[in-house]
Amino acid sequence: MNSARTSARTTGGPLYLGIDGGGSKCRALLTDAGGRVLGTGVAGPANPFQHYEGAVDSIAEASLAALAEAGLGEEALARAVAGVGLAGVNVPSIRERVCRWGHPFAAMYLTTDIHIACLGAHGGEDGAVIVAGTGSVGHVSVRGRSHTYGAHGFPLGDKGSGAWLGLEGMRAALLSLDGLGPGTELLPDFEDHLDASGLELVARMAGARPGDYGALARRVLACAGRGDAVALEIVMEGAGYLDRLAARLLSHGAECFAMLGGLAPHIAPWLSAGTRASLVPPRGQPDSGAVAYAIAMAATATAGLG
Amino acid sequence: MNSARTSARTTGGPLYLGIDGGGSKCRALLTDAGGRVLGTGVAGPANPFQHYEGAVDSIAEASLAALAEAGLGEEALARAVAGVGLAGVNVPSIRERVCRWGHPFAAMYLTTDIHIACLGAHGGEDGAVIVAGTGSVGHVSVRGRSHTYGAHGFPLGDKGSGAWLGLEGMRAALLSLDGLGPGTELLPDFEDHLDASGLELVARMAGARPGDYGALARRVLACAGRGDAVALEIVMEGAGYLDRLAARLLSHGAECFAMLGGLAPHIAPWLSAGTRASLVPPRGQPDSGAVAYAIAMAATATAGLG
Repeated sequence: MNSARTSARTTGGPLYLGIDGGGSKCRALLTDAGGRVLGTGVAGPANPFQHYEGAVDSIAEASLAALAEAGLGEEALARAVAGVGLAGVNVPSIRERVCRWGHPFAAMYLTTDIHIACLGAHGGEDGAVIVAGTGSVGHVSVRGRSHTYGAHGFPLGDKGSGAWLGLEGMRAALLSLDGLGPGTELLPDFEDHLDASGLELVARMAGARPGDYGALARRVLACAGRGDAVALEIVMEGAGYLDRLAARLLSHGAECFAMLGGLAPHIAPWLSAGTRASLVPPRGQPDSGAVAYAIAMAATATAGLG
Repeated sequence: MNSARTSARTTGGPLYLGIDGGGSKCRALLTDAGGRVLGTGVAGPANPFQHYEGAVDSIAEASLAALAEAGLGEEALARAVAGVGLAGVNVPSIRERVCRWGHPFAAMYLTTDIHIACLGAHGGEDGAVIVAGTGSVGHVSVRGRSHTYGAHGFPLGDKGSGAWLGLEGMRAALLSLDGLGPGTELLPDFEDHLDASGLELVARMAGARPGDYGALARRVLACAGRGDAVALEIVMEGAGYLDRLAARLLSHGAECFAMLGGLAPHIAPWLSAGTRASLVPPRGQPDSGAVAYAIAMAATATAGLG
């Protein structure tokens, strides 16, 4: 790696930055044209849907940190071709705003966080992914065409995600508390977990964020695993949605799909056998997918000039 | 009314304040011991669950405004027995905090907003109510015993409410957009209503409050009325919950129930015939119920002292 760093620094050859921006942090991966890692950097949240100014600041900060690790200064930003994957840019108005950013790079190629996750999971090749964490989203890229499903955010979408499982579980627990829904082990389980009794659960969840609901997901899965009918119905509804999502992704011509996100290993056993037959482990992380995107887009642009 | 005002002012007889505190405003109704109206006052939000300091300030401000309308000054607060109905005090920790307030009244009797709504709807007598507005809640008071169901807040509870109908409708519209749920007229209807196309709906609903979802409820009901299967399933699930809620209220010995809230006249036609057979129009407003509560509680306290 040292020789690669020296080569990039001394030859002034092309640099590629892969940016993986998310709601909690922003990662930058710096490589040379051969994909050799020169440096990495991390900064704060980069979700332009939630906070545009903070997002572009985090992208710049993470990029500078990656350059610094490679022994390069700020002036090298202008030599770097950036592939940037961000949440929220599937929404046209958000995408347009980020595109208008006066970025410091030689070129910037913008796409969604899920697209670079898909590229990373399949080593830059065609394929599909489902991310099941606090939220849920599916993506497929085949022969240069991409399709994304879900990613509608909490509480609107994200079916089958951690936040969705927790929300539906708490809804069912409170219906059971009122005697207006079937009894469920979820109620005493949540009371125990949150150290709150009956209606105090409502106070405990007041203003809860998606992550707070997501923290209940593993308990819903555990109750389902012990045969609780209410928890089981919720988990099967969520897993059924992910089955349909996987089928929709594969219908575009992908041969397999990978699953990412904290919930993935826990929800995967609940998917249908047919779905699991097409499931493969991810080959790499989203930041490496962002580099692959930058390299591919730069090559396309160069070809277009030739 | 002028003679009642003069009498209350000159004799220094007992005053009763009925306080109806809610998330958007706080109403105060001042009466004499016979229930004759002496004055009314309105102030800002009084929901101690959302903002405790603001809530107690609004209660004091609305009370002073009602006294002023009756030609009485601040010192008359100490002569007034207050019946206070507030959202959120069904949660024990919130109730305790309001009870610790160093209130300015001769006495303060605290109960829930839904309890005074029930008393108001039945002229201070036994009965049951369902409030279906942005949120949903049911309450029954029979022979001195009260029970409340629902009121768990958005997005956890409030099934069958305006916010719930809007949320479930938008969830279904977005599943349809992705081809991961059945097609529904809700999608073009929401696009038209919100002047947003496809995924821009997600941006339009980002950070939406319960009232924003509630604003979609009438459209879900209209789509259901035109026979859209997806909208119909949502409306029937919500109405079915309200049917079960009504049955649960009546099971405590109430002979009938009233419906309050902005959604009530629109969702009532979707209730089962059996439920509608027990539905009666409300006799009065929540602030009059709060006065009835103050008078009844003061009489009980006096009897206890005798």
